[in-house]
Amino acid sequence: MGNTATRLVEIGRRFYARGWMLGTSGNFSLVTSRRPLRLAITASAAHKGQLRPADIVQCDEHGALVGRRSHVRSKPDFALRASSGKPSAETLLHLEIARRRGAGAILHTHSVWTTVLSDLHAADEGLGIEGYEMLKGLQGVRSHEHREWVPIIQNDQNMARLAGRVAETLDEFADAHAFMLCRHGLYTWGDTLADAERHVEILEFLFETIGRTLEMGQVGQLGQVGRVRPARP
Amino acid sequence: MGNTATRLVEIGRRFYARGWMLGTSGNFSLVTSRRPLRLAITASAAHKGQLRPADIVQCDEHGALVGRRSHVRSKPDFALRASSGKPSAETLLHLEIARRRGAGAILHTHSVWTTVLSDLHAADEGLGIEGYEMLKGLQGVRSHEHREWVPIIQNDQNMARLAGRVAETLDEFADAHAFMLCRHGLYTWGDTLADAERHVEILEFLFETIGRTLEMGQVGQLGQVGRVRPARP
Amino acid sequence: MGNTATRLVEIGRRFYARGWMLGTSGNFSLVTSRRPLRLAITASAAHKGQLRPADIVQCDEHGALVGRRSHVRSKPDFALRASSGKPSAETLLHLEIARRRGAGAILHTHSVWTTVLSDLHAADEGLGIEGYEMLKGLQGVRSHEHREWVPIIQNDQNMARLAGRVAETLDEFADAHAFMLCRHGLYTWGDTLADAERHVEILEFLFETIGRTLEMGQVGQLGQVGRVRPARP
Amino acid sequence: MGNTATRLVEIGRRFYARGWMLGTSGNFSLVTSRRPLRLAITASAAHKGQLRPADIVQCDEHGALVGRRSHVRSKPDFALRASSGKPSAETLLHLEIARRRGAGAILHTHSVWTTVLSDLHAADEGLGIEGYEMLKGLQGVRSHEHREWVPIIQNDQNMARLAGRVAETLDEFADAHAFMLCRHGLYTWGDTLADAERHVEILEFLFETIGRTLEMGQVGQLGQVGRVRPARP
Repeated sequence: MGNTATRLVEIGRRFYARGWMLGTSGNFSLVTSRRPLRLAITASAAHKGQLRPADIVQCDEHGALVGRRSHVRSKPDFALRASSGKPSAETLLHLEIARRRGAGAILHTHSVWTTVLSDLHAADEGLGIEGYEMLKGLQGVRSHEHREWVPIIQNDQNMARLAGRVAETLDEFADAHAFMLCRHGLYTWGDTLADAERHVEILEFLFETIGRTLEMGQVGQLGQVGRVRPARP
Repeated sequence: MGNTATRLVEIGRRFYARGWMLGTSGNFSLVTSRRPLRLAITASAAHKGQLRPADIVQCDEHGALVGRRSHVRSKPDFALRASSGKPSAETLLHLEIARRRGAGAILHTHSVWTTVLSDLHAADEGLGIEGYEMLKGLQGVRSHEHREWVPIIQNDQNMARLAGRVAETLDEFADAHAFMLCRHGLYTWGDTLADAERHVEILEFLFETIGRTLEMGQVGQLGQVGRVRPARP
Repeated sequence: MGNTATRLVEIGRRFYARGWMLGTSGNFSLVTSRRPLRLAITASAAHKGQLRPADIVQCDEHGALVGRRSHVRSKPDFALRASSGKPSAETLLHLEIARRRGAGAILHTHSVWTTVLSDLHAADEGLGIEGYEMLKGLQGVRSHEHREWVPIIQNDQNMARLAGRVAETLDEFADAHAFMLCRHGLYTWGDTLADAERHVEILEFLFETIGRTLEMGQVGQLGQVGRVRPARP
Repeated sequence: MGNTATRLVEIGRRFYARGWMLGTSGNFSLVTSRRPLRLAITASAAHKGQLRPADIVQCDEHGALVGRRSHVRSKPDFALRASSGKPSAETLLHLEIARRRGAGAILHTHSVWTTVLSDLHAADEGLGIEGYEMLKGLQGVRSHEHREWVPIIQNDQNMARLAGRVAETLDEFADAHAFMLCRHGLYTWGDTLADAERHVEILEFLFETIGRTLEMGQVGQLGQVGRVRPARP
């Protein structure tokens, strides 16, 4: 696990370069243990373009910082610098995803297109995407005819309450690969960090595609399909 | 041929940086032998931003993986890493292009603009581009007054059936330098890898130009010419 | 303070790469002394993509170049090259911000989105931004429900007169983190250079988000709120 | 003059990275002698992202290749590679600009925004830009209240005829810093290469600003001023 922090740092730099984590926005985590549940996660307020391994901290299943000192002894890449870091404020959301999806890696980005679309489609509580070849990049999807519903959850500064809504949403839309927080950003995940990174790229691509189609005042072949929420099972 | 894989890897990184091959989208090939027909092609599901020479595999005229082990002995750039790779699922399309156009290199990209325009113009089964100086970058074109028809083919997960439609389209539009798969991406080719790469850049430039003109709610001087399919000969 | 110039140079290169300081546009400063007030500031007409430490000069509380020769002796990073530089023409604006906000660093950028929005909202004398998570990146903001009013000031080549208007605006909108000059650019600041850089990224992100929402002919959930000027206290 | 070619190569790479010289589009020149008039100019069909010093050739006042062999002996940066290069097809246009403006460097780029705007404003034979601070980056401009008229010339593959129209346009609009070829690209120039490069950045910035304003369906404060051709003197 010595290169866990390094891999998160490299993703931070790549996403920052694409403008998906400007300022100190965004955070991401890797599950380092299942029993008990432990995450390696970006520290609160770290700048993603200048991220260092020391900006990655560990937290337990309640989101509390754990074992920093003792941890540092055996995992030197966490010890390069004395970080003042505490886990990201949104750690509770990562934990819900890790638990309910069994995800190994969770990425949260703030892109312009996510912010715009999560605003415009907030009243529908989600955005449907169908008919694009790029959907095949989502884990388990085999055809462009797949329809992906990306739920949109109202933003909230009360993290316990927001985590509760995230949990409900993950349960209701059991096949969803991602969700958006309204005027805030995207959460997606995967079995591995590579899977989660690919999901970010796929979804950002699709959001830009939909956004530019809307900029032309067009709806494409899909018509208004994008607004219809899937029937509850 | 020792640097074939290296050259494909470099193109992958350049196109990934421009956002034309996000996720694991896109694939490209070089003809390494005419008789029998052999392609060096990107392995299925390879990430183009992190492509390595070992992600390039060889296939025969039926799209089957060929001669990996024995090949590796004489061409060490294919042996740097044990790739689990099989040829891209779209290998059959590359083979049709290699056969019917005599192309030496074939590039398939997934850009936002291609995805948007191949959707908006799907009902016309193609997009006409005329009057732009940049058209002179296409092989054999000598004047901006050239009219390029870029056929749009419906997407299909059945590769044998899709390869058949590609073959028909290449025969019908014998002068076309490229075609699009609807809501999927662009295929273009050239005598050399440099020719094919230049064609991608030219066409992506023209698609963005047309897309932005449409975003302004304008049609430019060209009016609706872009929608008229060329008469069959 | 030996690396002050180096840090400003690095920010110049980063912002230039993002297209926020093309040509010789933009300028930025660091407060190097409070009593008397002294700024390290980019020299007039320096190209930000090729900025060197020697392009950073020092000025006094009136905007006059100070102590260059003697200064150079003790701070070799200012002496790498004989710069013909005089302080930026907009030094008086930096000084007003340093005085009235107690800022430690001041950054002025020229982005396309700032130029467009400062034009479209000029009649309102400002732009209101509310409801975005990204607002939390502004110093002291704790919730996305924060409403930021970004005043817009008419552009003027008379720097003394413009500095007077800047002073009035800073006093009237005591909570503002930034202001725009109409069809000209953005001024923002912070306690530290990192704070100011983060503010640029946050505001540029929000301007692009608002700009793209407008490109879609949409107003989002915020409706016309963005145009209502805050009541005077 | 040993680094002339190197400087042109570096500009080629920078502009290629910004998407202003995709494919083999664009060309640029430096005046190496006034009497007789001699230009160092990019060779026809050179790829600007992979430009090498050997892709820069010399031509005389008629646009003919000159002194390559003998020249190579004394200026080794021209001899690194046996280039098949002949001067760019548009050399005659560069020569007109060098003669009539006394320019020391001439840059011709193909950007998306230039292509779109030169199309939309072709009927007006030019585009007026007024009221932007960024205009002050143009040589000799002291205020944002400056009005720049950028003439648009119909594209033509007959270079002698097109050079004639360029000459007329340069004489008619004696204050213009640039002109566009319709659906083709931008020509600008300066006393030095740095001046010309700054002019490209300034004008591309302004074209994008105007283009995005139009994408919003807005005309800004400037109303229709942009379409009114200046009165002839």
